Amino acid sequence: MKATAIGPSNIAFIKYWGKKDEVLRLPENGSLSMNLSNLFTTTTVEFSKSYTEDYIEINSISESNEGSRAVKHLDRIRSLAKITEKAKVITNNNFPTGTGLSSSASGFAALTVAAAKAAGLELSEKELSILARQGSGSACRSIPDGFVEWLDGNTSDTSFALSIFPPDYFEIVDVVTVVSTDKKFLATSEGQQSARTSPFFEKRLDLIKNKIDRVKKAIEDKNFSEFGELIETEALEFHSILFTSNPPLFYWTPETVRLMKFVQKIRSEGLECYFTINTGQDIHLIVQEKDLNALKDRLKKVAEIKNIIVNSPANGTRVVGSHLF
Amino acid sequence: MKATAIGPSNIAFIKYWGKKDEVLRLPENGSLSMNLSNLFTTTTVEFSKSYTEDYIEINSISESNEGSRAVKHLDRIRSLAKITEKAKVITNNNFPTGTGLSSSASGFAALTVAAAKAAGLELSEKELSILARQGSGSACRSIPDGFVEWLDGNTSDTSFALSIFPPDYFEIVDVVTVVSTDKKFLATSEGQQSARTSPFFEKRLDLIKNKIDRVKKAIEDKNFSEFGELIETEALEFHSILFTSNPPLFYWTPETVRLMKFVQKIRSEGLECYFTINTGQDIHLIVQEKDLNALKDRLKKVAEIKNIIVNSPANGTRVVGSHLF
Repeated sequence: MKATAIGPSNIAFIKYWGKKDEVLRLPENGSLSMNLSNLFTTTTVEFSKSYTEDYIEINSISESNEGSRAVKHLDRIRSLAKITEKAKVITNNNFPTGTGLSSSASGFAALTVAAAKAAGLELSEKELSILARQGSGSACRSIPDGFVEWLDGNTSDTSFALSIFPPDYFEIVDVVTVVSTDKKFLATSEGQQSARTSPFFEKRLDLIKNKIDRVKKAIEDKNFSEFGELIETEALEFHSILFTSNPPLFYWTPETVRLMKFVQKIRSEGLECYFTINTGQDIHLIVQEKDLNALKDRLKKVAEIKNIIVNSPANGTRVVGSHLF
Repeated sequence: MKATAIGPSNIAFIKYWGKKDEVLRLPENGSLSMNLSNLFTTTTVEFSKSYTEDYIEINSISESNEGSRAVKHLDRIRSLAKITEKAKVITNNNFPTGTGLSSSASGFAALTVAAAKAAGLELSEKELSILARQGSGSACRSIPDGFVEWLDGNTSDTSFALSIFPPDYFEIVDVVTVVSTDKKFLATSEGQQSARTSPFFEKRLDLIKNKIDRVKKAIEDKNFSEFGELIETEALEFHSILFTSNPPLFYWTPETVRLMKFVQKIRSEGLECYFTINTGQDIHLIVQEKDLNALKDRLKKVAEIKNIIVNSPANGTRVVGSHLF
């Protein structure tokens, strides 16, 4: 009744924003992402009659449990497995929590896979993705391998993620530039609720299926220039939706803009690099693997950058043999 | 045959972006602005048979004339006045040119009024506004007094600006924070041509008439909170149109974001201040006159600010008696 899983964070190239069903976490639109090799969560779950309540510890800090999203998620899994035992959950992120590095994606993916295994459930990848989605929407994308599409779906059973290309298909890297370890000003799940207050949101939805198809085609063709332009345009469109929401959502910092301009500059000088930005202050720089060292050299000269995290495309969430307790 | 005019720059609270007629400079949408007391252009024009070609000097630097916008504008005025004399034009801005402080608005307003007078034309305010518009769209708003609306119009004769409230009606000030005197990366008139490439532009146009009416009502009611929220929302919407254009138009700098956050911070602390941003890196801070000193005190602590320019609502462009040559 004890199991451990490692789940990667993922970077969305087409962003998930807005839910058509709050409870089931059905997204307004499909999205597209890549799992990240160096941003991950390890979670060990044990169900046991010896526990009188759920105990959850994240990065050595115990969480207040009452009604928390993690406890609700354990309840879903207990319900599926028809068990009642309370759980001990120890979880470690190898990166800061709540700063926009998608700890809820890797966290709920790892929790889903570890808890399902510990509860004795034998679930398919699709079933795990559906389950992870209910914990945190983008967590469903951290279940399958490599490059992943989340089909929006109109029901819980049709809203899940699947691998569209294996990790080694497209040789790109995501260099996360950490400019701050402050917590972001607003949790993503709160911001999401205002998606429809942007006057432009409906138009975004009208066009997004076509955009997803174009990004998939660019990956299939290994056309990095086309891919890069599409994802950078998407990042700006996404943040334009945030800026025009009521109240406006403002995740950028001065450093975000500085790095966006840095990307435009190095690209104009021949180093092909594109950016994408999530709901956090860090910026993800996407280059082809062959250009990674050149990018690293350039980044050394940017004073604002506190740290970089280099990520290759990675597999999805896996059960592993060694436990955290 | 010599005349001098002083024309103010203006700050748009509802922005002008996109033209439905490039040649006549008919805008896609109406806009709303305030003339600025401390950003202005002084221009002296003399038509004389002794000049063999047009000579134009801006801030002591002679401009290359061939086909320039200023020469075309002189041609319009010569054509109206049925004269053929070449002109000498000396013009001074009291602020840096081409950095987003609307030198083309004040410049073409002053040129229009001075040249029309020097050419012996007796034009109404409306006629001067129509004429100024053909030189540089937003210049038409610098002709009438105080708070000004530019009616978009479908013909040249119906696209002009008029005063909606006198300068002393609404006691606000515009504190321009100068963070850089670099030239902006793209002249506004070039950027304008891409307006319709934003997927959101059409929706903006659908909603803008209502927004203009709400801003006018807020000024009429002297409701500063309503006014401030509307203009800040508009500034973010405007820049969202720019971010989502193809190619994306990016006028913000790191300092722009820093100041936007500064405004949000001081407002949360009780100093009611709002921002608006044009196609330049400087940010306009709008406060009620009674809060000006409090704002100045706060601004002293912001290292990035090189200079501030405090503007009250001002009259439009006027003929004056003293000449620059």
